[in-house]
Amino acid sequence: MNELDLIALLTRSLPANPSVVAGAGDDCAVLDCGAPGRFLLFKTDAVVSGIHFTAQEAAPEQIGHKALGRCLSDIAAMAGTPLAALVTLALPRKFQPRFIERVYAGINRLAQRCGVAIVGGETTTNPGRLLISIALLGEVDQDKCIRRGGAMDGDALWVTGELGGSLAGKHLDFEPRLAEARWLAANFPIHAMIDLSDGLAGDLRHILRQSGVGAELLARSIPVSRAARLLARTQPSTKPPLLAALSDGEDFELLFALPASHAVPLLDAWKRQFPHLRLTCIGRITAEPGLNLRDKYGLRPLDTHGYVHFA
Amino acid sequence: MNELDLIALLTRSLPANPSVVAGAGDDCAVLDCGAPGRFLLFKTDAVVSGIHFTAQEAAPEQIGHKALGRCLSDIAAMAGTPLAALVTLALPRKFQPRFIERVYAGINRLAQRCGVAIVGGETTTNPGRLLISIALLGEVDQDKCIRRGGAMDGDALWVTGELGGSLAGKHLDFEPRLAEARWLAANFPIHAMIDLSDGLAGDLRHILRQSGVGAELLARSIPVSRAARLLARTQPSTKPPLLAALSDGEDFELLFALPASHAVPLLDAWKRQFPHLRLTCIGRITAEPGLNLRDKYGLRPLDTHGYVHFA
Repeated sequence: MNELDLIALLTRSLPANPSVVAGAGDDCAVLDCGAPGRFLLFKTDAVVSGIHFTAQEAAPEQIGHKALGRCLSDIAAMAGTPLAALVTLALPRKFQPRFIERVYAGINRLAQRCGVAIVGGETTTNPGRLLISIALLGEVDQDKCIRRGGAMDGDALWVTGELGGSLAGKHLDFEPRLAEARWLAANFPIHAMIDLSDGLAGDLRHILRQSGVGAELLARSIPVSRAARLLARTQPSTKPPLLAALSDGEDFELLFALPASHAVPLLDAWKRQFPHLRLTCIGRITAEPGLNLRDKYGLRPLDTHGYVHFA
Repeated sequence: MNELDLIALLTRSLPANPSVVAGAGDDCAVLDCGAPGRFLLFKTDAVVSGIHFTAQEAAPEQIGHKALGRCLSDIAAMAGTPLAALVTLALPRKFQPRFIERVYAGINRLAQRCGVAIVGGETTTNPGRLLISIALLGEVDQDKCIRRGGAMDGDALWVTGELGGSLAGKHLDFEPRLAEARWLAANFPIHAMIDLSDGLAGDLRHILRQSGVGAELLARSIPVSRAARLLARTQPSTKPPLLAALSDGEDFELLFALPASHAVPLLDAWKRQFPHLRLTCIGRITAEPGLNLRDKYGLRPLDTHGYVHFA
């Protein structure tokens, strides 16, 4: 049984109550706790030594940055504003206080920059390896909360930044797209949004499934990162750059669907607002289900791992 | 460096923002997110295999129950109502889906009974051992939120249930005192409250330090559990029962301070409301700092581990 099967099994029937607007299955849980006009966003995420980082590769501050940044990226995906976080440190029996202090410095620096309060947490023992779990609360105006399930035929698909090759470094110092997402929701009728954590092809599938639609991506429009190109050139055994952009995880960019009629105003306004961050139209939503890639060989099905199926 | 030193180091200066009513240092963080008249309560807690339970001793349902119950007990300590939880499962590489399903069944059963929605979470890999972290949101009326810092000279100290010997079984099937705490806050001017997780002597110290007062406990009034008595009788090498009641962790009972004048009305009303749960006056708050125990040898200082210091 893989992780997705297990999650499907466990989330079949979960206890609910009237505060729940959206439970498991979106970037964050959405709750109505009585604040007029606003929803609460609730998210947890954990990073584990040897899985999400290695102490050899990552500075302690980067580990802290990544732990909080992953949660912030999920708040961004719903166009929310983060409020407060709790930090759970599960520590190996022999830990260096200075190391942990520096992990916290990374968390605190990002928290400060994003206006997040760190309101406590706990330390516990996890013999063998460091695990950091962050629980994050955010808020969003009820009419600006962007879910995964609203994409429609005729929408264009957009992505911020560049994709692929995150393991070369970006996964440790990415910038959660909070301001960008809030600006998008405030200025354009975004139909659906998600943050890219598992790879473009896989994460787009979540939007398609929950919206009941399909999509067509344009191979030549995918913004392949410099890191992915460099990796492919220097390490020829790695994935081709386009495949990396379609399938590599931890880009932490925004993917969203917006009616195609807004394309020109969006691009114009974006360039004025965020001149240093690329925004690219990578394809369109289709009424027919399925995910396809259009390249010089034609239109072919794309699987969740980013591979095209040759006819 | 021990855990408390580390926590003191890490929480010296944490990022804050205007939503924070109380950050690290109480049973839960307290936030004002704009719901009129209400505060949000925010808490995380983790249980780790081999530390908080062993798979030999605990049924999977009990592990789930304990993981959620510990957080619920902290919501109870502030007289709150739990709303929604996220469940983080960090799983060893080889896990039995049926085992995890049963852990979830234990979580879900307790959640259902307490009105808590399970709104998602995540699974991740933690080679070597199972770790379950729960993030819990609750709410409380602003004027009914009971903190640790309000105990005053002249208050009587009360405890629910019986103390000590939790490891004999209670730590796996305790009942978070949610209804009792809400009833107390609704009907009596409770000055300070905490749930007993680290042992009576240690947890009382938190109330005393944050309230700037001292306390005197009456040895003969401490409600020693049957489990603690039985353990001392059958395993003479263990602690004496009174020491167990003063120092054993994981009782998950409520300890609170209330002006002494309310003692008789409280006991009368309690017996009608909760006839099957003991409520005991165990001592009083004093203006002089320090924690003392009065027994047949007189009044002597008590340390956080429950030991008296002989003169």
